[in-house]
Amino acid sequence: MTKNISYGMVGGALGAFIGDVHRKAIAFDPRAALAAGCFSTDPQRNGATGQAYALDPARVYANYQEMAQKESARPDGIHFVSITTQNNTHYQIAKCFLQHGIHVVCEKPLCFTVQEAQELAALAKQKALLFAVMYSYSGYTMVKVMREMIAAGKIGQVIAVNAEYAQEWLIDELGESDPGTAKLSGWRSDPKVAGISNCVGDIGTHIEHTVHYLTGLRIKRLLATADTFGKALDMNANMILEYENGAKGAYWCSQVAFGNLNGLAVRIYGNQGSLEWQQHYPDYVRYTPKGRAPQVMSRGTGYIGGAAAGGNRLPSGHPEGLYVGFANVYRNFIGAVIKKRDGTPLAAADLDFPTVEDGVNGVRFLHAVMDSAANDSAWRTME
Amino acid sequence: MTKNISYGMVGGALGAFIGDVHRKAIAFDPRAALAAGCFSTDPQRNGATGQAYALDPARVYANYQEMAQKESARPDGIHFVSITTQNNTHYQIAKCFLQHGIHVVCEKPLCFTVQEAQELAALAKQKALLFAVMYSYSGYTMVKVMREMIAAGKIGQVIAVNAEYAQEWLIDELGESDPGTAKLSGWRSDPKVAGISNCVGDIGTHIEHTVHYLTGLRIKRLLATADTFGKALDMNANMILEYENGAKGAYWCSQVAFGNLNGLAVRIYGNQGSLEWQQHYPDYVRYTPKGRAPQVMSRGTGYIGGAAAGGNRLPSGHPEGLYVGFANVYRNFIGAVIKKRDGTPLAAADLDFPTVEDGVNGVRFLHAVMDSAANDSAWRTME
Amino acid sequence: MTKNISYGMVGGALGAFIGDVHRKAIAFDPRAALAAGCFSTDPQRNGATGQAYALDPARVYANYQEMAQKESARPDGIHFVSITTQNNTHYQIAKCFLQHGIHVVCEKPLCFTVQEAQELAALAKQKALLFAVMYSYSGYTMVKVMREMIAAGKIGQVIAVNAEYAQEWLIDELGESDPGTAKLSGWRSDPKVAGISNCVGDIGTHIEHTVHYLTGLRIKRLLATADTFGKALDMNANMILEYENGAKGAYWCSQVAFGNLNGLAVRIYGNQGSLEWQQHYPDYVRYTPKGRAPQVMSRGTGYIGGAAAGGNRLPSGHPEGLYVGFANVYRNFIGAVIKKRDGTPLAAADLDFPTVEDGVNGVRFLHAVMDSAANDSAWRTME
Amino acid sequence: MTKNISYGMVGGALGAFIGDVHRKAIAFDPRAALAAGCFSTDPQRNGATGQAYALDPARVYANYQEMAQKESARPDGIHFVSITTQNNTHYQIAKCFLQHGIHVVCEKPLCFTVQEAQELAALAKQKALLFAVMYSYSGYTMVKVMREMIAAGKIGQVIAVNAEYAQEWLIDELGESDPGTAKLSGWRSDPKVAGISNCVGDIGTHIEHTVHYLTGLRIKRLLATADTFGKALDMNANMILEYENGAKGAYWCSQVAFGNLNGLAVRIYGNQGSLEWQQHYPDYVRYTPKGRAPQVMSRGTGYIGGAAAGGNRLPSGHPEGLYVGFANVYRNFIGAVIKKRDGTPLAAADLDFPTVEDGVNGVRFLHAVMDSAANDSAWRTME
Repeated sequence: MTKNISYGMVGGALGAFIGDVHRKAIAFDPRAALAAGCFSTDPQRNGATGQAYALDPARVYANYQEMAQKESARPDGIHFVSITTQNNTHYQIAKCFLQHGIHVVCEKPLCFTVQEAQELAALAKQKALLFAVMYSYSGYTMVKVMREMIAAGKIGQVIAVNAEYAQEWLIDELGESDPGTAKLSGWRSDPKVAGISNCVGDIGTHIEHTVHYLTGLRIKRLLATADTFGKALDMNANMILEYENGAKGAYWCSQVAFGNLNGLAVRIYGNQGSLEWQQHYPDYVRYTPKGRAPQVMSRGTGYIGGAAAGGNRLPSGHPEGLYVGFANVYRNFIGAVIKKRDGTPLAAADLDFPTVEDGVNGVRFLHAVMDSAANDSAWRTME
Repeated sequence: MTKNISYGMVGGALGAFIGDVHRKAIAFDPRAALAAGCFSTDPQRNGATGQAYALDPARVYANYQEMAQKESARPDGIHFVSITTQNNTHYQIAKCFLQHGIHVVCEKPLCFTVQEAQELAALAKQKALLFAVMYSYSGYTMVKVMREMIAAGKIGQVIAVNAEYAQEWLIDELGESDPGTAKLSGWRSDPKVAGISNCVGDIGTHIEHTVHYLTGLRIKRLLATADTFGKALDMNANMILEYENGAKGAYWCSQVAFGNLNGLAVRIYGNQGSLEWQQHYPDYVRYTPKGRAPQVMSRGTGYIGGAAAGGNRLPSGHPEGLYVGFANVYRNFIGAVIKKRDGTPLAAADLDFPTVEDGVNGVRFLHAVMDSAANDSAWRTME
Repeated sequence: MTKNISYGMVGGALGAFIGDVHRKAIAFDPRAALAAGCFSTDPQRNGATGQAYALDPARVYANYQEMAQKESARPDGIHFVSITTQNNTHYQIAKCFLQHGIHVVCEKPLCFTVQEAQELAALAKQKALLFAVMYSYSGYTMVKVMREMIAAGKIGQVIAVNAEYAQEWLIDELGESDPGTAKLSGWRSDPKVAGISNCVGDIGTHIEHTVHYLTGLRIKRLLATADTFGKALDMNANMILEYENGAKGAYWCSQVAFGNLNGLAVRIYGNQGSLEWQQHYPDYVRYTPKGRAPQVMSRGTGYIGGAAAGGNRLPSGHPEGLYVGFANVYRNFIGAVIKKRDGTPLAAADLDFPTVEDGVNGVRFLHAVMDSAANDSAWRTME
Repeated sequence: MTKNISYGMVGGALGAFIGDVHRKAIAFDPRAALAAGCFSTDPQRNGATGQAYALDPARVYANYQEMAQKESARPDGIHFVSITTQNNTHYQIAKCFLQHGIHVVCEKPLCFTVQEAQELAALAKQKALLFAVMYSYSGYTMVKVMREMIAAGKIGQVIAVNAEYAQEWLIDELGESDPGTAKLSGWRSDPKVAGISNCVGDIGTHIEHTVHYLTGLRIKRLLATADTFGKALDMNANMILEYENGAKGAYWCSQVAFGNLNGLAVRIYGNQGSLEWQQHYPDYVRYTPKGRAPQVMSRGTGYIGGAAAGGNRLPSGHPEGLYVGFANVYRNFIGAVIKKRDGTPLAAADLDFPTVEDGVNGVRFLHAVMDSAANDSAWRTME
């Protein structure tokens, strides 16, 4: 039996939402155990979190630099670190762990500038380290099924894309906001912490990654509008894109669209068929083959072939949910880390998780969108 | 009892699709009888159509000029004419009937140039004639209900719009087309007959009108891309719009999007709620009031108030369908014609049908879109 | 060109709902003109209705007996009569017109007793007259498509059925009802007028007919419960059925089920596939072939074959609605009447409309259900 | 901080489906650690499973009797056991652990006979032990929300129920089955192992429990048909039920209904509103309040009140999935076990998980249904 690995976490103190999702997701497959952490800059919260997970107190660190240094020095040090801190800290933390030779999983957005992103990518490459960026929706089984179908030519050449990510949770920001209670108060309203964008950075980049993951299409150029409604950062944006194959796409992201909760939805149109998917119902894909009726394909059924079908955890008709999306990203990442540790050569299929290159693309995309929006919707490339 | 009126038709020979829809729609309310026609330039088809509807052969005319002249001279001449001919003939036919003092219903697009459109509008105004352009989707009861809800402030101020009209029927045009069988052969592929646009002209203008009818928003400027896929005319287009109130919108129209049949869908987002509607299920509206769950409102139910609710023809749960949409446009138009005839003053509510001004807007929109698309997506106004 | 026919109507004065639907439906195809009527027992309403439709006053009759007698004596007398009166009058009116040699279309339920129903069937047969009972849902194109698919073996042998017809409109009857305003006041609460059942008779019989029309299955026996909630007649009923082929089915009808407007829904399960259909969205069928994903088939598309596909009136994606359902029943019935008049032999396909035999089945079904419900849910046959 | 507890498992060797779901679900909340097990009667599989979870080899037992005895004797013995073995072993294993004073979670069905079920219930009561039966669907947050809404009178008095659980996975059993590959081969086709029923026992009981959990309604009597299609056990069944409050219900369960994967769906109709829910989309509830439009309520939103709303794990729009349903049952059960251990009094709300009494009800229901079906659908009580 393969010996398990261990991991550490930066961020994710008890009560923090996304760090908890990461831990639950890793726990889905008993191959990586939490062994170290720097969960909070508040020593009490930090310690309490370590205790809750029965960590050796010596491996609950006051700061991430110490953690990277000491863990890399231990013979039983962590194999990878999960970074679930605020956006403005991703770059420095990821860089530190890479420098100490530790594989990295980082929440998105990877960082704030293209230069930083490229630096992290170069460093990971130089150190031959694995680096995943948590675009969790690519972990859904049916997203992988669609990707395989497109690669296998089931919809022919892609000729048009329509995708969106709509939410409603920031609608109250449109009125007179009370600085004490506003949802955009705190770091989300502070460009130094949140970066140059709120809506495009937070959810627009998920559109970009999901479409790219599904189709492999590269964006040649794009134009955009972004709406701040008089506030510091954008809460709604429209984009038109031209891909390198000549197809056009339209993306829309919004945090002020009533009736939408977490509505990532992609529709990919080819000259031989189309595929549609909504994150709200992740186990289902609407597939229209040329000349035939639209089909509602369900995860886990016999008519779904390919490698992705093997990734099911629950039988058809039993909803897998978001935790499984995260868990699937980690399953592949951890599998690759174990192979690395064991000196097993990695095949392309072993790297089926969003990488630091995807993180670089996300930052490029974000900057191109915001730059176009700031320049009267002029076309911008992804360079 | 009010004395009924009579109408004539240009176009719409037996076997023609849209002319038949117009006749059926008018027949829904027994207030206007078909009394004259110039159904086809083929004398045999023309005569056969007149015979099928038991018309006086003397009122089946060889050309529309003669029809306009003779009908306007008869004491029992037609009160209005329905024009259901090819796009390139609308202008001259409509102009001719207006000059002879006959009210007009014309299929969309109204005509090819803004100048022609304005000329028709001016002529109708000068002659004090009624002029409807058949944007039939505004006839659906639930579209009228949404319009009333927006006017009543149910969703507050509009802050974003997302609308589309997607079809798949021209997908085969993307390949090597056989001139003999291609769907875009004939007048649809000939700019002289079809105008400067195929997709935006045919269905994109329906988006523009539906959003305008629902919200009253005026477009300040727009930018667009249009895809011809190497053929003569566009089959796919993306637009971003800025309305005069500052809100932004995104429109998408396509005739090559597998899985879409006649998918006009509009989503209007306000700062107090949202409304969504799909033409495929015209009797239903999804309404999300602020802070509440989305509701699926059905036509004909007790919780729908306002004047529009009075327009129901069938009880709730009995689908009304497209014929009823056309019939409702005609119900209002014919009601106005009767009031005109009787010298009854017309109130604003009597003019609840798409008018020649809407037709002008449609032509302006079409030109702005195609001009932007031809100029690397530069912003264009609706002037 | 085929010479058109004429028809008369009993019931359906101006303002009456269902008579108007019949007239609009007949007007969809210009082959039968309204020529005579006995619209109301109120002379003024009767006359006004005749005038609205420009009838010869001599053919607006004070009673149906006179109408049947005089029309049958005229050389240009009506070819068929449409009966849209209250349920308790169907039998005598239909009988009278049959006796005078006039084809009949009658609203459902056909009549109150199996004996009466059989008598009408026998009379029609003896006189070689056509007799349609208006089970309008069988007129929907997609219902006909499903019927053809089942006949062609697309779902194999039927092994289970689940069907329902749920409404909410009588919910207020459950409380203390005001005799003046209650919806069940008047004839609907009077067994002498409404018959032995309200809910099963009004909508349960539609389930029975739709399933039979689709599958051809004959009911071997059934058992039922019926709920009156302390009132005169049933408003909710459950049934379990055994068909002659051994399959079982469950039917549910209700007029007190919140959230349901006119929810006729049928699901037919075979050993090679299944078919599902909802009246609220009549243009769509969900088809699951064995081993494949469920498909959402749309009316008017190229992948739908068979004769039924030829019955489309509107292109795919344009909702046809309930009027078209009625119109399709009339299209087939009127086609058969014309063939009869012209001495053209009738093929089986010409009789694709619900007949008096279907009406007899409906009465049998209703009596079996109510008899089982009254006898502690004992099994009852359809004899 | 509360000290965590430990648990053991009987069944659930590596590769077994449902045992793994239980372990993942327990791991969602870091309050109970796997400490002992008797995972398989195959020593090698048993040992490998213990090793995979890093158990002390001394606590991986060859049989459950030894496990119950030794664990109950240890000062650090397990606090509860999860039983995920074949149906025919539940009774004896559960009894054994109860006799040794260990709390029990048992997969459903609890056991085969009403007498055994009552014996287990009595034993748990006598020993004051907690006993959960894994009706996992009651763990979904929105099921709990509906339950609270009904208790709060949001739909008034329940007047009708329509519920079903439809699957398609056994359809191939209808043909000539190959004993070697048939899905119903093995224990599922052997009444000694599977019990007296396949379909009603496996999924019909979920309908019974879900409706009871939601409404609190008690079944007064029921009648049923069950279809074996010539095989050993039922694969399809229809039921009509009368509740003690006089309302009627219809249940349908099937494993041969094409197009259904794991289709548990319940619709509860009251005299003030209705509630509908489908397991395929567990985060959504359709709620129709009297006189208002149907609403689609989503888990995690602000308009959902009550205690159940506090049970969310993910923000609205992020699908929770089946694992969370299991995890929520365990969260409440483990919370109650901890209170028991600590001597904290248990409130009613602490016992919000399906109990041994629910298990007894399930067995009663199953016997009543199968007995009615075997006796020509005679009414049967739940005694």
